Amino acid sequence: MGTGRLEAFSDGVLAIIITIMVLEMKVPHGTSLASLQPLLPVFVSYVLSFVYIGIYWNNHHHMLHIIKKVNGRSLWANMHLLFWLSLVPFVTGWMGENNFATWPVALYGLVLLMAALAYRFLAHCLVQLEGKDSPLGQVYGADRKGILSSLVYVAGIGLSFVHPWIGFTAYVLVAAIWFIPDQRIEKKLAIDNSKDGQ
Amino acid sequence: MGTGRLEAFSDGVLAIIITIMVLEMKVPHGTSLASLQPLLPVFVSYVLSFVYIGIYWNNHHHMLHIIKKVNGRSLWANMHLLFWLSLVPFVTGWMGENNFATWPVALYGLVLLMAALAYRFLAHCLVQLEGKDSPLGQVYGADRKGILSSLVYVAGIGLSFVHPWIGFTAYVLVAAIWFIPDQRIEKKLAIDNSKDGQ
Amino acid sequence: MGTGRLEAFSDGVLAIIITIMVLEMKVPHGTSLASLQPLLPVFVSYVLSFVYIGIYWNNHHHMLHIIKKVNGRSLWANMHLLFWLSLVPFVTGWMGENNFATWPVALYGLVLLMAALAYRFLAHCLVQLEGKDSPLGQVYGADRKGILSSLVYVAGIGLSFVHPWIGFTAYVLVAAIWFIPDQRIEKKLAIDNSKDGQ
Amino acid sequence: MGTGRLEAFSDGVLAIIITIMVLEMKVPHGTSLASLQPLLPVFVSYVLSFVYIGIYWNNHHHMLHIIKKVNGRSLWANMHLLFWLSLVPFVTGWMGENNFATWPVALYGLVLLMAALAYRFLAHCLVQLEGKDSPLGQVYGADRKGILSSLVYVAGIGLSFVHPWIGFTAYVLVAAIWFIPDQRIEKKLAIDNSKDGQ
Repeated sequence: MGTGRLEAFSDGVLAIIITIMVLEMKVPHGTSLASLQPLLPVFVSYVLSFVYIGIYWNNHHHMLHIIKKVNGRSLWANMHLLFWLSLVPFVTGWMGENNFATWPVALYGLVLLMAALAYRFLAHCLVQLEGKDSPLGQVYGADRKGILSSLVYVAGIGLSFVHPWIGFTAYVLVAAIWFIPDQRIEKKLAIDNSKDGQ
Repeated sequence: MGTGRLEAFSDGVLAIIITIMVLEMKVPHGTSLASLQPLLPVFVSYVLSFVYIGIYWNNHHHMLHIIKKVNGRSLWANMHLLFWLSLVPFVTGWMGENNFATWPVALYGLVLLMAALAYRFLAHCLVQLEGKDSPLGQVYGADRKGILSSLVYVAGIGLSFVHPWIGFTAYVLVAAIWFIPDQRIEKKLAIDNSKDGQ
Repeated sequence: MGTGRLEAFSDGVLAIIITIMVLEMKVPHGTSLASLQPLLPVFVSYVLSFVYIGIYWNNHHHMLHIIKKVNGRSLWANMHLLFWLSLVPFVTGWMGENNFATWPVALYGLVLLMAALAYRFLAHCLVQLEGKDSPLGQVYGADRKGILSSLVYVAGIGLSFVHPWIGFTAYVLVAAIWFIPDQRIEKKLAIDNSKDGQ
Repeated sequence: MGTGRLEAFSDGVLAIIITIMVLEMKVPHGTSLASLQPLLPVFVSYVLSFVYIGIYWNNHHHMLHIIKKVNGRSLWANMHLLFWLSLVPFVTGWMGENNFATWPVALYGLVLLMAALAYRFLAHCLVQLEGKDSPLGQVYGADRKGILSSLVYVAGIGLSFVHPWIGFTAYVLVAAIWFIPDQRIEKKLAIDNSKDGQ
């Protein structure tokens, strides 16, 4: 079974998630610049979540680009990833509207952590299908970046109870290390291409 | 007429349905963990509906994968299926916000039943178009799983009036038997492939 | 320029329109069956609008299926059609929530009329591009069904001021005559195919 | 990496943006024509934003049509463009609901300006990838229309503080000069085609 429709469905869901988040920024009643001020934390949360969904879309795009088929199990692993990402607008709204209070920041991190684990599980299912020696298998063999992210999320969630801004900073940090699309795949492809060219 | 655009439109509608359901989980005003507690039944409803839409997408994907053309009648049968599924966010919200009261649980089951019958009718239209001896015709000849589901839905709706949790359990049961994507089709394809290989 | 991305964008917009309309059916607070009763007119409006968007999607699908290229003018004619259709959720909500009062029913008809004229204009642009002797040109030469619809809409809008249900009945009537996808194109294709076969 | 999925994702986001804007037009409670009157500025804002999103979709369509590959940097440049466009529903609502007050009109212009700069940056990234002598490079070499637009936006934002309608008129003006899809590309393609034909 090809990857086309899986990509189309995932694109649709990610496009909607990224867009409905903006609905949490309720249009204020005043017309002064000051009336926008209470929206600032909501806006900051929105920007971070937008970047995260963008990262997931980018990496998802890269990962599915080097595989050719999916099975039923991968379809559900993908759906599982979309489930956790679908909760991002909710936790974004809760965190933004409460000006980065402790529990909202911790829950935001938890949803990010679950999404990261779901992404890892999807990669695992696809590697099983393609084989460990496949391009994908070689790329995702030692997922140091993924493991590091999960550890930073866990630390961020815990440290949110010391001060929520520590948690928030941790999440920004993870976004920063993923901002560049999965270069492991681009590098792998480049090496393969150069080998083919010999 | 090819199936491409039918799939694209259905993917779009299903992606939106699965995503706007999360809008029923209104961001709470408090910042404590306790302020999330009233959302628990809404969350549970959301998870079940997410799984259901996932099942429909998966099976729809499998069904359209083995056919090559659609006619006007199938387009409308597909639209009819999407209609019932489009009501899922509404009944999910009603059931969740009312903590699984009797009528909301019964109506939720009714919408699931109507969607199941609509899916069955779509399969019927496609079999008529492709022929009973087509791969699809052989798969959907004796739809025991489909008939069983409908009976469990009907029982669940009725028993909701004894206690709503019986109804809810029935719906979870049907989701469980459908969770695995339509293996009949995967099996059929595998057999055909092995025959071709002889 | 190919039609692929035009179809994809239109599918996306139509899928969203058809799905967000259901958000107008606000989840009621009560749990009795009676608490659903005030939603009945909203539901009836939703069903009619769902059928209308379905009709537009079907006919749009048929029309773009027999053409090969689009130009900038057609892109805008298509956008113009989507504009009027994007107002359907608004007028559906206004009509449903006000139990089919006069002005809402008249405005609903006006939006349908504008969408019909926009569809006609899109067909006109595409015929200009493809030529009057093209398959599309032959199909849309004498658009009796389209002209009839517009007349019924105009009559329906006017008669809404006598009694809104007359207007509503007129719109149901037009939906009924379009319910079957554009058979002119299917017929045309069938004739062409049989000619090719000679 | 092909442009297919980038187009699909962008189409999805733009389709959702253009459609959820209509949700800012809240269904009024009255049934008279007069009850629609307060919605008039919201409607006017909606029309302008609809045209703008349409322009972006059209030009995006044209730009990606003449390139063949994208890299990670272009994916993020595209995401950056979508970010600013995702704020359009918010500023449209703020401007419309406040009857074109000063700050809302100025902020609306600022978001349009940022989107224009983001579009310009995306074009720049793609030209770098394709080369200055590529069709895209020749088209976007001297982007006089783009520079002019940005200047008019800046003027419009500033003059909103003299009177908001001056700002609004400036934005309408820019929409008017972009209304026609990017003819530079169509012209370029036409010249190339005629050369190929020699």
